[in-house]
Amino acid sequence: MTQTDTALPFDAAQLDRLAEVAIRVGVGLRPGQDLIVTADAAALPLLRRIAKVAYREGAGLVTPMISDSAITRARYEMAADHSFDRAPGWLYDGMASAYGDNSARLHIVSDDPMLLADQDTDKVARAGKALNQAYTPARKMITGFQTNWSICAYPAPSWARLMFPDMAEDAAVAKLAEAIFAASRADREDPVAAWNAHNAELLARRKWLDDHRFHSLHYSGPGTDLTIGLADDHRWKGGKSTSKKGVDCNPNIPTEEVFTTPHRERVSGIVRATKPLAHQGSLIEGIEVRFEGGRIVEAKASKGEEVFLKLIDNDEGARRLGEVALVPASSPISASGLLFYNTLFDENAASHIALGQCYADCFTDTKMSDEEIAARGGNSSMIHVDWMIGSTEIDIDGLDADGGRTPVMRGGEWAQAL
Amino acid sequence: MTQTDTALPFDAAQLDRLAEVAIRVGVGLRPGQDLIVTADAAALPLLRRIAKVAYREGAGLVTPMISDSAITRARYEMAADHSFDRAPGWLYDGMASAYGDNSARLHIVSDDPMLLADQDTDKVARAGKALNQAYTPARKMITGFQTNWSICAYPAPSWARLMFPDMAEDAAVAKLAEAIFAASRADREDPVAAWNAHNAELLARRKWLDDHRFHSLHYSGPGTDLTIGLADDHRWKGGKSTSKKGVDCNPNIPTEEVFTTPHRERVSGIVRATKPLAHQGSLIEGIEVRFEGGRIVEAKASKGEEVFLKLIDNDEGARRLGEVALVPASSPISASGLLFYNTLFDENAASHIALGQCYADCFTDTKMSDEEIAARGGNSSMIHVDWMIGSTEIDIDGLDADGGRTPVMRGGEWAQAL
Repeated sequence: MTQTDTALPFDAAQLDRLAEVAIRVGVGLRPGQDLIVTADAAALPLLRRIAKVAYREGAGLVTPMISDSAITRARYEMAADHSFDRAPGWLYDGMASAYGDNSARLHIVSDDPMLLADQDTDKVARAGKALNQAYTPARKMITGFQTNWSICAYPAPSWARLMFPDMAEDAAVAKLAEAIFAASRADREDPVAAWNAHNAELLARRKWLDDHRFHSLHYSGPGTDLTIGLADDHRWKGGKSTSKKGVDCNPNIPTEEVFTTPHRERVSGIVRATKPLAHQGSLIEGIEVRFEGGRIVEAKASKGEEVFLKLIDNDEGARRLGEVALVPASSPISASGLLFYNTLFDENAASHIALGQCYADCFTDTKMSDEEIAARGGNSSMIHVDWMIGSTEIDIDGLDADGGRTPVMRGGEWAQAL
Repeated sequence: MTQTDTALPFDAAQLDRLAEVAIRVGVGLRPGQDLIVTADAAALPLLRRIAKVAYREGAGLVTPMISDSAITRARYEMAADHSFDRAPGWLYDGMASAYGDNSARLHIVSDDPMLLADQDTDKVARAGKALNQAYTPARKMITGFQTNWSICAYPAPSWARLMFPDMAEDAAVAKLAEAIFAASRADREDPVAAWNAHNAELLARRKWLDDHRFHSLHYSGPGTDLTIGLADDHRWKGGKSTSKKGVDCNPNIPTEEVFTTPHRERVSGIVRATKPLAHQGSLIEGIEVRFEGGRIVEAKASKGEEVFLKLIDNDEGARRLGEVALVPASSPISASGLLFYNTLFDENAASHIALGQCYADCFTDTKMSDEEIAARGGNSSMIHVDWMIGSTEIDIDGLDADGGRTPVMRGGEWAQAL
């Protein structure tokens, strides 16, 4: 249930600063832009602060799209079978049109990642697929950076209870809040300046990778011997992005990764996940897959295997890679030692890959058509799901087209000081 | 703030029954229909129950559209001037398309009616006008009964505090809850049977009025000497309606009125409001207007006059009538003696009229074009605002085309037993 502000078991001043970070650093909202904010009702204390900051910064209209996890659960508990193939296409089509009309977008993550863990996996998968299909026009506007957008997080009680099951609820919420504020740099005196410095570091790392123009990356470690070809004309991204309309934004608050687009046909070898993957309310552990010609040809998991196999069967592109990302094992989120059960955080604890849709702006030419992107090896799919393959036991080399090798990471850390 | 279920200061079993009434009597949801529910976050305890009932009754997808009054207020407190001409057209266009695609609709009233009472009336009026314009396609689907829809109410603390300012909050909420449950027949053992009986009574009254085919109604009483011409081919409605797709619904929970479409050019004389009108967060009292040729040519109010004058300046149709409704002064809501500051309730305490858009289904032929409706005297506008002109001091006569008079109401009560 929604908490009253007076009852927040953490420092409200840091929540104020998180709202500033979300609008000024994350969304980079420009005066006159409208803003669509999607959030669970549990995140209202942050959503309200964000609306105030957005209006103060000159927003036209802030439209909150508030969901409620109890209503989400009610569907699985009560609905007839036909319900699980339905999705609100009219809503997502409208959002896509708003993004094309200069509305910015912010999503607040707060939900219990295990919300649907005890529900019928077939129903969860079907509902997810219907949602993914309906969301395609809006997702393309977002992944193509037709507008400025961001995702940030709020420490809702259900999420905190999952992470800290042995603690009293208020203490668990306080601990999650502390981790979110630290990772989002809302614990700093001047969070905006801290983000500027962080973005400069990520930019230097991107420049080093772009300058080397690697043909592929090779990963080695326990259970992993994987070559990931990079897309032709790929470009490394990370931290600050710029929308097609020229607005700077930080799509993920927090973020520690640099990432680019792999070639959908040039991935081969075996890889073992180094952390669990929380997906649509299920926890998938011990993923091991083999790629041939870019495609997953063998897959297993020690837990949640059925969910993982359904995931990669969403469409042809769901078996291929859409993102490859590098994160040092010493990143602050990794150092926290916490498993957040949420990609926004967990992907910043380790190098990772994503199945599914690629990012159109991870190319040197960011105005290409879908066909031009596909011709350079960019993957397309209605899913985009990250999972962790990095750890202190993983080495990564950059390979040139002629076979030359450059150490990129050793024992999970950058091999080169910049 | 949202209340937890465990802390509800009233009988949760009656809230369960209200959810049953809302879906089975109000919306009349059919298996396979989607449902869009608009509500403030404060109404989550009812919204969650409604979602469960809707899914149990075979809903495809229940899409909650949850607003938050603190975010609404943040706009008035923080936003730049340009914000007040903005409205989320993409959202309402999408809703209109969903209604055309067999989505049913439910709105839960719960907000503090005085939420914006202390804000700049010019900003409130501009924002209201922008919203009304953007909402036009969706409103036409609703007023034209292209789908089945309903409005019901939830006893939120802010609304209860306004009605009972001298009571402790829990006691005020309990008192408002009791009034809502009673008026909505959720306090009965079998609310659905009670609604069936009530609808039969309203139907008999409609039939009597239809059989008399009055040319106009004449109102007399203190400050009132008003003739309201009825539209050609008008039909009386009230209680149960049937959508264009043949689905029975009760658009208002509660409802005590029978109503039809006046002729937009045949209203003349003076009329004095008998109750205050709560409009967009302002309370308008002591309205007195004079009609000529169907149009308001003089208007004043003892309180909130500026808001009322802005309201009737929204467009040309805002000065003309779109609805005339008859309610006995002894109706249960009138007998409660409460002022709810909300039309859904207060309009059921007295006979009333509405400025603005007429209902397309208040004609014998319910499939007419906008032009055909206009040719019969139906009014069009982007507003539809009810205000009360009935009391125990008002007599109403039905006039035939040749001047014959039939008593309809005497001292606020039906003149004829049926």
